[in-house]
Amino acid sequence: MSGSLDTLAIGAIRFLSVDMIEQANSGHPGLPLGAAPMAYTLFRRHLRFHPDQPDWAGRDRFVLSAGHGSALLYSLLHVFGYDLPLSELKRFRQMGSKTPGHPELGVTPGVECTTGPLGQGLGMAVGMAMGQRWLAATTGADFGRTFCLVSDGDLMEGIAQEAAALAGHHKLGGLVCLYDDNDISLDGPTSRAFTEDVSARFESMGWHVSLVEDGNDIEAIDQALTSALADPRPSLIRVKTIIGFGSPQAGTAKVHGSPLGAENTRAAKEALGWPVEPAFHMPAGLAAIAEDARTRGREWVAAHPGAPQPKADWQEAVMALEGGAMATRDAGKMALNAAAAGIPGLMGGSADLVSSTKTEITGSPIFSPEEPAGRNIWFGVREHGMGAIVNGLALMGLRAYGSTFLVFSDYMRGAIRVAAVMGAPSVFIFTHDSVFVGEDGPTHEPIEHVPALRLIPGLDVWRPADLRETAAAYAEAFAADGPSCIVLTRQKTASLEDMPHAAEAARQGGYVLHESDEPAKIVLAASGSEVGFALELAESLGRPYRVVSLPCLERFCALPAEQQEAILPSGLPTVFLEASARHDWKGLAIGRDALVVGIDRFGESAPGEEVYAHVGFEVNTVKKSILERWA
Amino acid sequence: MSGSLDTLAIGAIRFLSVDMIEQANSGHPGLPLGAAPMAYTLFRRHLRFHPDQPDWAGRDRFVLSAGHGSALLYSLLHVFGYDLPLSELKRFRQMGSKTPGHPELGVTPGVECTTGPLGQGLGMAVGMAMGQRWLAATTGADFGRTFCLVSDGDLMEGIAQEAAALAGHHKLGGLVCLYDDNDISLDGPTSRAFTEDVSARFESMGWHVSLVEDGNDIEAIDQALTSALADPRPSLIRVKTIIGFGSPQAGTAKVHGSPLGAENTRAAKEALGWPVEPAFHMPAGLAAIAEDARTRGREWVAAHPGAPQPKADWQEAVMALEGGAMATRDAGKMALNAAAAGIPGLMGGSADLVSSTKTEITGSPIFSPEEPAGRNIWFGVREHGMGAIVNGLALMGLRAYGSTFLVFSDYMRGAIRVAAVMGAPSVFIFTHDSVFVGEDGPTHEPIEHVPALRLIPGLDVWRPADLRETAAAYAEAFAADGPSCIVLTRQKTASLEDMPHAAEAARQGGYVLHESDEPAKIVLAASGSEVGFALELAESLGRPYRVVSLPCLERFCALPAEQQEAILPSGLPTVFLEASARHDWKGLAIGRDALVVGIDRFGESAPGEEVYAHVGFEVNTVKKSILERWA
Repeated sequence: MSGSLDTLAIGAIRFLSVDMIEQANSGHPGLPLGAAPMAYTLFRRHLRFHPDQPDWAGRDRFVLSAGHGSALLYSLLHVFGYDLPLSELKRFRQMGSKTPGHPELGVTPGVECTTGPLGQGLGMAVGMAMGQRWLAATTGADFGRTFCLVSDGDLMEGIAQEAAALAGHHKLGGLVCLYDDNDISLDGPTSRAFTEDVSARFESMGWHVSLVEDGNDIEAIDQALTSALADPRPSLIRVKTIIGFGSPQAGTAKVHGSPLGAENTRAAKEALGWPVEPAFHMPAGLAAIAEDARTRGREWVAAHPGAPQPKADWQEAVMALEGGAMATRDAGKMALNAAAAGIPGLMGGSADLVSSTKTEITGSPIFSPEEPAGRNIWFGVREHGMGAIVNGLALMGLRAYGSTFLVFSDYMRGAIRVAAVMGAPSVFIFTHDSVFVGEDGPTHEPIEHVPALRLIPGLDVWRPADLRETAAAYAEAFAADGPSCIVLTRQKTASLEDMPHAAEAARQGGYVLHESDEPAKIVLAASGSEVGFALELAESLGRPYRVVSLPCLERFCALPAEQQEAILPSGLPTVFLEASARHDWKGLAIGRDALVVGIDRFGESAPGEEVYAHVGFEVNTVKKSILERWA
Repeated sequence: MSGSLDTLAIGAIRFLSVDMIEQANSGHPGLPLGAAPMAYTLFRRHLRFHPDQPDWAGRDRFVLSAGHGSALLYSLLHVFGYDLPLSELKRFRQMGSKTPGHPELGVTPGVECTTGPLGQGLGMAVGMAMGQRWLAATTGADFGRTFCLVSDGDLMEGIAQEAAALAGHHKLGGLVCLYDDNDISLDGPTSRAFTEDVSARFESMGWHVSLVEDGNDIEAIDQALTSALADPRPSLIRVKTIIGFGSPQAGTAKVHGSPLGAENTRAAKEALGWPVEPAFHMPAGLAAIAEDARTRGREWVAAHPGAPQPKADWQEAVMALEGGAMATRDAGKMALNAAAAGIPGLMGGSADLVSSTKTEITGSPIFSPEEPAGRNIWFGVREHGMGAIVNGLALMGLRAYGSTFLVFSDYMRGAIRVAAVMGAPSVFIFTHDSVFVGEDGPTHEPIEHVPALRLIPGLDVWRPADLRETAAAYAEAFAADGPSCIVLTRQKTASLEDMPHAAEAARQGGYVLHESDEPAKIVLAASGSEVGFALELAESLGRPYRVVSLPCLERFCALPAEQQEAILPSGLPTVFLEASARHDWKGLAIGRDALVVGIDRFGESAPGEEVYAHVGFEVNTVKKSILERWA
């Protein structure tokens, strides 16, 4: 290699990465060594950014979908002048550093999203590109393009296939993927399991595909990027690389996920003409790279409108909804549309169930190349892709949602978790939330899903009881800093409209819904459709009671302990009711004199009311259990 | 339509389906009306089965991946002479019938697997076809072919794309998919979200693709099936149909998932020349169809070896393993290989993490067209497809397993749930089971996954503490009737080899591991890597203690109440320890004087020991909590 600035910079990116991994004795050197030239070429010649203003709204996005190659990204950011000093590179994968094992949103300037679980990055990139198009169409401003670096592993994942299919459908010309095509994955040659014609597969989905034969040929990479950006379709640039380039073990799985070791590090540096010592060598001349980036950045950065902001009173409008008893999915439709009227950046859709989840924004077109300002997204039957795309939209500053049946939250759990890890304000709306689904049977009747979602740290799970509580859930979820799930019924529920405090009180996650005139001797605590059940049950018991509604356990458990105690006194017998697997309630039942009524089996195919009773939710059955327990 | 037997049979299949859905006032008539001719042609001219011996080991498999079209399947089974009388068709979607809303394994003779969640059926069909090849190669007997009926929705799902890619890689010529290509999905025209070139996409994955222009042309369907079976590749037959054929609303989404109603039912019957009355009309002449099926069935059915059976003493061999302290993933490797030595039908693999999960069957080739008896499957980075394929293999009578990191169980949760709903004995092996993953950070550190898996009804979740308990987990999981997860560490754990009762006792799910000479005043209960932590903690407390190991809560909670009480006395202060989200323990902590030590936040990227302590698992920290609580 010559001593040009390009060569120097690529060498620095490669060996800063290698040295980081050596220092941590942990990491993935194969990708940085192979993919450094393509990543460098992108940052140097195409990506629009300003290293001092990493949050500038008009920037291009770069997503390292192959998140295990994080060292590459940190080296890049350092070389291009972001606020990520060598001292942080030296603390790679250590507690509290800005250089964690996989890229994490909010930890490192210039990192656009949390990646690592394969395929998620590509999915979020598709969402970002969709968001860029939508924002450009609605504001008239330029919101940049999205570049994504993907590995073999990314492309094998179903989530990537789902997202890619939708990107092709939408002709997302602003999306360019650099494919680190190195024929090796963790377990060895991809020929053992991954022999499809990747180019033909992407072309079949409406993508523009090109090939760079030599991953070290930055002129060819540059030309491919130029062509890709000129094409109206999303582009996949297959860049043939050698994993662990330069190392004696280059081209083998051995360099994928383990440090090279001192000997091979030395050999690689020698092979590529890099000084063996010192580690973390940064040639002084490379300061020009960062300076050039700043100069270009200053030219781009200008007044920018950013994403549209909500109206000041949108929550009040949602909270003012009235309508009597209805299914909470119908309440959700009202709340969503009320919110959409006040939040211009609210958009989303369903995985081919919009007519069932009732999540259409009335009067807005379906988002498409012809209707780039449409707020309704037809995701197709692609739940996992939908989840990642919603995350990508949320990262663009939009208030994005995706919807499907609750039981299919399983299909998109990987994406929900990434939203929670990075604290993206994605909203996932799940209807058909219990055995009341009835005839569709156990494959469509969620049992374990509400508690399983509650297990994810940093995720608010709302299960409102009626229109009032549904309004509260929407008012909170679409204003939250982090992700939310809203879980709704298909069937009609009781109305709480004669309890006027319900709506506001619900926003705190749990409250006293109703109690006897005499001091309560028993507490019935419930969520969603079981709140009406609890009211009916309470009346049947013949003793003073209190009914507590708990629409969001995460919010309730975040209240001060004394406030929780005032609502749910630990000294009283307490019955917890939810048509979900029983061993949950965020631990509220632990140490309490409690009975937990739930469902620990799969459902049945029969009318919903019958199934509900069959699995135990029948007033007399539960009453009997209570009277036996507390005679 | 003419009055031929074929026409009559297709009419009966269509209108039995319609009448079932009308009677239930629930179901999906669009698919049966459109796809009846292709399904009939398959059963009449190609499928090898005997209606009186639905479990004959050499039969062809038919999987209705578009499980919402269950009425079609029940009508078919009735017409072809299975033990599914009209009285059961009349009880479609009612409690306890043999005709539930979606097909369910074990409920209806002739139903090969539980379907409904889209894509799962195709995934299982791929597994069945792999199993058929493997069984034929190892036994010399014919285990049939696999046919699958898929919808637009199936093909949009990532799981289907993953499984299809692997089917193409393996050149599964014994797999034939009939694609009900009707341009409509639940929310409307597929042109809104699904515009890829499906033929090219499947061809890019190594499939043979053909087209039948008219879904009512049974001769064309017949020829396409003949050609498909002759092709060495898996085949996709695109059959262009009209959803809801015959109904006034044919060709629209309105007939997808709602009953036609009386008026449109009448119109459809009239349009297709079917008697309007009575409902559930079965022309007498159709008895010949079932009789012919029986005659053909008798010719096929012969002595068949079935799947190979385990050696009588395989569990003893597993339980006899010894080896000292090690990571339980290493223990798992020993146990898996000991089990594989005694169970000839044990096979499986990993989603490109075999070198990390250590689940290779030593000495056996990688399963491939050239090595059809290989027991190691390279699934590629395709977790969800792997889950469904493992289910399909299990349904072929094999002891199949799939493995990945525990955190990626999220990606395959849909398939795990289907295994649990249908009670398939699939085994899912998950390693890297806690924040001890360390440097890879929060995206790779499972927090909520063990409790989330425990929420799924009918699933055993094993989290063994050492080699002895790991052996117990393998001995039980590979003998179980239903599905199991085995959750293993990456890091070394304590050895329980000086507690010789551990191995046998572990098989019951929970047992007293160790206690002081004096009567215990406190109980420490733990699973997996926290068992060693609990032993260390117990010693530090300075009071008589008992340590209970709980490697499988499902098994423990199935013990008689008095046995549970003897192990875990409800009257004693009890500390539950697991490096997982806290609100679980199958409700064991409810009503008990208990402290639950767990993790309710995401992890960090740093060395594993540091992260473990950082999130609270540090002996002095926990000791302090205990002494404060029970001074």
